[in-house]
Amino acid sequence: MQGSRQHRVVIVGGGFAGLNAARGLGGAPVDVTLVDRRNFHLFQPLLYQVATGGLSPADLCAPLREVLKKQANTTVLLSEVSGFGLSGRRVVTDHGELPYDTLIVAAGARHHYFGKPWERLAPGLKDVEDATEIRSRILSAFERAELIDDADERRRLLTFVLVGAGPTGVELAGAIGELARHTLRREFRRFSPAEARVLLIEGADRVLPPYLPELSSKAKRSLERLGVEVMLETLVERVDDGEVTLRSGDELSRVPCGTVLWAAGVQASPLARMLAEAAGLEPDRAGRIRAASDLTVPGHPEVLVLGDMVYLEDLAGKPLPGIAPVAMQQGRYAARFVRRRLAGKPTGDFHYVDKGSLAVIGRAAAVADLGFVRFSGYFAWLLWLFIHILYLVGFSNRALVLFQWAYSYLTRGRGARIIANASVGPPPDS
Amino acid sequence: MQGSRQHRVVIVGGGFAGLNAARGLGGAPVDVTLVDRRNFHLFQPLLYQVATGGLSPADLCAPLREVLKKQANTTVLLSEVSGFGLSGRRVVTDHGELPYDTLIVAAGARHHYFGKPWERLAPGLKDVEDATEIRSRILSAFERAELIDDADERRRLLTFVLVGAGPTGVELAGAIGELARHTLRREFRRFSPAEARVLLIEGADRVLPPYLPELSSKAKRSLERLGVEVMLETLVERVDDGEVTLRSGDELSRVPCGTVLWAAGVQASPLARMLAEAAGLEPDRAGRIRAASDLTVPGHPEVLVLGDMVYLEDLAGKPLPGIAPVAMQQGRYAARFVRRRLAGKPTGDFHYVDKGSLAVIGRAAAVADLGFVRFSGYFAWLLWLFIHILYLVGFSNRALVLFQWAYSYLTRGRGARIIANASVGPPPDS
Repeated sequence: MQGSRQHRVVIVGGGFAGLNAARGLGGAPVDVTLVDRRNFHLFQPLLYQVATGGLSPADLCAPLREVLKKQANTTVLLSEVSGFGLSGRRVVTDHGELPYDTLIVAAGARHHYFGKPWERLAPGLKDVEDATEIRSRILSAFERAELIDDADERRRLLTFVLVGAGPTGVELAGAIGELARHTLRREFRRFSPAEARVLLIEGADRVLPPYLPELSSKAKRSLERLGVEVMLETLVERVDDGEVTLRSGDELSRVPCGTVLWAAGVQASPLARMLAEAAGLEPDRAGRIRAASDLTVPGHPEVLVLGDMVYLEDLAGKPLPGIAPVAMQQGRYAARFVRRRLAGKPTGDFHYVDKGSLAVIGRAAAVADLGFVRFSGYFAWLLWLFIHILYLVGFSNRALVLFQWAYSYLTRGRGARIIANASVGPPPDS
Repeated sequence: MQGSRQHRVVIVGGGFAGLNAARGLGGAPVDVTLVDRRNFHLFQPLLYQVATGGLSPADLCAPLREVLKKQANTTVLLSEVSGFGLSGRRVVTDHGELPYDTLIVAAGARHHYFGKPWERLAPGLKDVEDATEIRSRILSAFERAELIDDADERRRLLTFVLVGAGPTGVELAGAIGELARHTLRREFRRFSPAEARVLLIEGADRVLPPYLPELSSKAKRSLERLGVEVMLETLVERVDDGEVTLRSGDELSRVPCGTVLWAAGVQASPLARMLAEAAGLEPDRAGRIRAASDLTVPGHPEVLVLGDMVYLEDLAGKPLPGIAPVAMQQGRYAARFVRRRLAGKPTGDFHYVDKGSLAVIGRAAAVADLGFVRFSGYFAWLLWLFIHILYLVGFSNRALVLFQWAYSYLTRGRGARIIANASVGPPPDS
């Protein structure tokens, strides 16, 4: 556009939004730079399978370079973004500044503890390290139970508390239930893994609160069939080492437990706040930027913000959920936006197309896993499986995941059961 | 045997030796306890594939509990052994003492730096954490090269030095050569990954020194075809941050490099020294115990020591190598030894049956990987593949590894390219 130099697009983040934006710009008359602090795209919706030993991290990771290697106009840089110079149109990274003509920011979200210092005691599930850490905690709890004689202590170790019954909490609870009741059966000599208690804590009056009530009750029944105790209208008052305090109405109860996992809320990446400050805006409570209806940052038509970092409402005034389909559609929209603007065509607004709640039934059914197979939810589960595998980025991963799934479906086994590092921690008595 | 109580066998270590001993005692009239500080058996011979992004750690790990779950007489404990009380017949662990009637110790080996403080600068490849650390270092070197303009610094980053041309060094060198020349081709925009230099340093006058000279020269030619520079009769004089100093004869040369990997020697687990001290013996230079010809510890017929912890010679007076087939045969022998002694039968000596050097050709040929396909070594490579996959412990892993191999054979891709943790380290200039 400007004389001989190509229009430069910098994309921050290689998640669903950023990667789809980058792919959408393949072959466009622009110079694309994708910056991420990780060298891979992560398929987050299946991360709970890594956390429970069903899949390996690499099954869900596609190297960004490999995905984008055929796009000659695209450079991938592995670096951390530390600031935005909006007036000079530069992104500051750990390895120097990147000038841009159009900036697309899609750095995602992390867990939200609402100001409480619970991150170490109750890890959440957002990236590969979270997943392997959670996997180690879950498996170590069973291992430690085999090492002791004290029945109370064993009961504590085998109590798993999941905070938040959104999709991640529901999937994790179901997978831990399956692990305890089926996978680990007959593997211990001093106790039965089926003694494990899995508590799913939810503040609302049903699981999967954003979905249809029928789906919520189906999901709840499926979870209970796997032995999960679903506690609705219950809040977590405190998290301590070895114990959580729950509140139902005015009643407080203390539950000794070995593992607490957090799935109760997310907060936009700190880059959202940096970008908001650079643009003179105030982020919302979850740290997100209120973008214009074309995903641009108000006052900065050359900056788009996508995915979990953005707060946007649909035409009915309902906020868009922080899920992969929204991010992917926004990424594709951003690429089209750049192409059309460069061609001098109108860009139009972003509209999320909800492909229906079938996938959602599927996800709830997949939580039910094999327990759900015997009735109608089976086909929803198959559909969920199909959709998830379809969207796995690399072919190799897709076939691998399908294979592992078929195998664990047939045997109820979980192969990826590695406890990281050399020990289960200090002896319980010390 | 002694009244109503079962004979108690404690096995320390779930590697090739320990796991084979445990399996061999399935159904025997004994009470078996297998103690390991990890919850899985690791198929070490393929670990270089994890270090170079070809396989995931879990592909090579079989949960010990799962492998042994059908043996009702066997308990698996995840704990670290910290001592041996031979007179009281007890093993001291982090979670209490384990009494035994027969003790089998097979805790393996670690790298040997011959007293030099090089472990951090030049990691070796023995366990899963080593492999993921090495994978991160190799991939990060390429990532950092994409972030800089300085040609000398890039040349340094892209220089990989492998110390020791035994099987591990040869396999790693070949895999890095393959990665640079084939897998990463077209993935970078500012340099060609084929610029990478891979130096394989060996003190002896040929690679794979314990094998037949014809095999050594075939392996060397295969490596050179992948661009590996093989430096024979060369010693590492110093390892510094960003540089190694090499000695050939009287000549010293300094080589700036980004990654140094250690495959020059192993040393028995510290448990060997503990056991030797408890038995009043002196370990050899590599920390191994000189066992009797029936693998018992001299003076302690109730204690057997197996695998990389033991120094043993064959009938010709040649020391047995520290390889998986030796360890597996010793494990099976130990189980038979226990069964026969309990039955009052003669136990006999351990004899290693060398199944021939075909697998060794295969291993060298597999180093050559796809470059070797075009001539006679191909069938050796297939045989090597077949044998390695055959010995992978779990069925699921076996099929998974075969699948991944077929996939990377066809595409030259490597899917498991995860750089651990969030960054490639500080910017090169800082």
